[in-house]
Amino acid sequence: MLDFTFYSPTKFAFGRDTEKQAGTLVREFGGSNVLIHYGGGSVVRSGLLDRVKSSLDEAGVRYTELGGVHPNPLSDLVYEGIDICRKENIDFILAVGGGSAIDSAKAIALGTLYDGDFWDFYSGAAAPQKALPVGTVLTIAAAGSEGSGDSVITNKTTMEKRGAGGECIRPKFSILNPALTQTLPAYQTACGVTDIMAHVFERYITNTTDVEITDRLCEAVLITMKNEAPKVIADPNDYEARANIMWAGMVAHNNIVGVGRAQDWNSHGIEHELSGLYDCAHGAGLAVIMPAWMTFVMNHNVMRFAQAAVRIWGCDMDFTYPERTALAGIKAFRTFLHNIGMPINFAELGAKEEDIPALVEKFGIGDGKTGGFVQLDKNDIAEIYRIAAHAEL
Amino acid sequence: MLDFTFYSPTKFAFGRDTEKQAGTLVREFGGSNVLIHYGGGSVVRSGLLDRVKSSLDEAGVRYTELGGVHPNPLSDLVYEGIDICRKENIDFILAVGGGSAIDSAKAIALGTLYDGDFWDFYSGAAAPQKALPVGTVLTIAAAGSEGSGDSVITNKTTMEKRGAGGECIRPKFSILNPALTQTLPAYQTACGVTDIMAHVFERYITNTTDVEITDRLCEAVLITMKNEAPKVIADPNDYEARANIMWAGMVAHNNIVGVGRAQDWNSHGIEHELSGLYDCAHGAGLAVIMPAWMTFVMNHNVMRFAQAAVRIWGCDMDFTYPERTALAGIKAFRTFLHNIGMPINFAELGAKEEDIPALVEKFGIGDGKTGGFVQLDKNDIAEIYRIAAHAEL
Repeated sequence: MLDFTFYSPTKFAFGRDTEKQAGTLVREFGGSNVLIHYGGGSVVRSGLLDRVKSSLDEAGVRYTELGGVHPNPLSDLVYEGIDICRKENIDFILAVGGGSAIDSAKAIALGTLYDGDFWDFYSGAAAPQKALPVGTVLTIAAAGSEGSGDSVITNKTTMEKRGAGGECIRPKFSILNPALTQTLPAYQTACGVTDIMAHVFERYITNTTDVEITDRLCEAVLITMKNEAPKVIADPNDYEARANIMWAGMVAHNNIVGVGRAQDWNSHGIEHELSGLYDCAHGAGLAVIMPAWMTFVMNHNVMRFAQAAVRIWGCDMDFTYPERTALAGIKAFRTFLHNIGMPINFAELGAKEEDIPALVEKFGIGDGKTGGFVQLDKNDIAEIYRIAAHAEL
Repeated sequence: MLDFTFYSPTKFAFGRDTEKQAGTLVREFGGSNVLIHYGGGSVVRSGLLDRVKSSLDEAGVRYTELGGVHPNPLSDLVYEGIDICRKENIDFILAVGGGSAIDSAKAIALGTLYDGDFWDFYSGAAAPQKALPVGTVLTIAAAGSEGSGDSVITNKTTMEKRGAGGECIRPKFSILNPALTQTLPAYQTACGVTDIMAHVFERYITNTTDVEITDRLCEAVLITMKNEAPKVIADPNDYEARANIMWAGMVAHNNIVGVGRAQDWNSHGIEHELSGLYDCAHGAGLAVIMPAWMTFVMNHNVMRFAQAAVRIWGCDMDFTYPERTALAGIKAFRTFLHNIGMPINFAELGAKEEDIPALVEKFGIGDGKTGGFVQLDKNDIAEIYRIAAHAEL
């Protein structure tokens, strides 16, 4: 096990009607003049925004609104939010929505207190040091941004999709009401499930040995997704399954399952180019990329993939040919993704094989290498895209 | 799943040499004049106390020392600590040791800012609202007090062992260096393992349904203990196994595995009377009590105990007679405890069957009932002590 620091000071209010606690929680963490940041009309139509505003009113908290966050949140709205925060002397940002609204809120929180261009934090030119406090009311279990210090934004000019991370943008509180996710279409639900599982797999597939506790915690989240996701696809109103998935989504990404071990975020990086180019859902892109990445890197440690196959997917262990068990696990993952309605290859995603050189170019490692489990060069990345392009059940 | 709030804002520094971060961490959380609170001589002899003091010196932090915490920490030292904190204007308490030093530090932290008798928080006469900030340097994986808002103290006058809980006594930071636990005797190590497992079982055995994520997280910790504990009993210097156990001990008790479900802390309560009367180790008492409690309540939900047997202990499921599987799981737990050197009945613990009426009397529920899984009256408590008295492999 590697040395680590773990710090997850977000306060989580979980359960029915918890959005009514928004005003009290904003007050508890020092806010009095809030920017409410959200995406499309569903938050308005469902009445959620009104309930949140009522809660702020009751707590005597002022607020300004900024809607319109895009599913792959764009830099232009971030600049607009920063302007508003400065003009209105905003002291707290409350994101109402999914990972996109939260990530956009984090970017605004960073940019408001920074003299330069907020994109510096995403291009790697600057490291996040301070930000306005952020709180969230989550409406989709997926990104884990409600409990993480991470944010991903797409540059409107270059269409580059890049991440920033730092303790200062970890939410002060997050409100998780599983009932709010019951109105989500099945496709978005399944995209969220895939994203959650990817967050765990990026941590689970590691070269670090003797990490029994985090191995088992990773498997706990993955088994939960395997068992609960089909329930919500069958019955979108299954509150209990929604609740299990929503809490699992937080656990998957606040790093409690990932401490003390090397991680590998190549699947996320390789996917980002897909959703950057085609504007497809991040989860759908991951459904296509992650099993392809697994197939490509599997031989680096067959026994780790066999472990996943046996413990998560319930495959029989083949002690003579463990690679067969490893492959059976990857196949089980892909079949699971297909069964919950996810694309499993380029055609189903709406991606094109002839774009692979452009995708690799945008991935942008030049002649370098990247990866925590297996170091990949640009030819390896291209091969993973090709495996993804042609994948079948 | 039940509604819940989860808030675990403790910062954990985990790994080799992390005690060198003590000074920086005290500063980070606003301390400048510290009471170092610890137990016996091992902290001094090992050089740990000197290393901690050096770290405080380097950070320019003043300190006063108070050693002498007893394994079942007593109220008289708490009063002494409160006096020192007031006289010396202490603004931060740093516990160096195990759960006893930490719990005693929490009591001092509460009492220093309270006009009345600190025991009010433990008798239930007052609820913790404010306390001096507490940090910890942990030397034994067991109590989970490094990440919890709980404290247990024994009243020197009445020998009552009682708990207090509140967010204000949750440590600001905890330093977890697994190497510090390598010098622990096997018996103490095994007591810690038992305590950790009990913390999970008290949450795992529940009437709340549809709690897949926390069921699986509980099982993750329990499987880890099953696999890692025998390694440290065989080789006390196995750093990796120590590390897995130490982190599992935190995960077991900061409530990440227990949210959203009814819990049952009767085994802890029933045990407290044993360690209160005989001054035995809490973990050793739990090894005797917990399987006895399980045996007594098993028929309330045979399938839950069968689930534990299959998933944690690897028992075959008997689909015709599931109660046989449930019993096999309890037997496997008791055998595991015996194999790591724990007592499994009154004789091995040094307790006496003729004291059962006195133990029940001290348990103090009169004609009432208590329990989250099964409501127990005084006759049930007596029967559990009797099962514990006569338990065999």
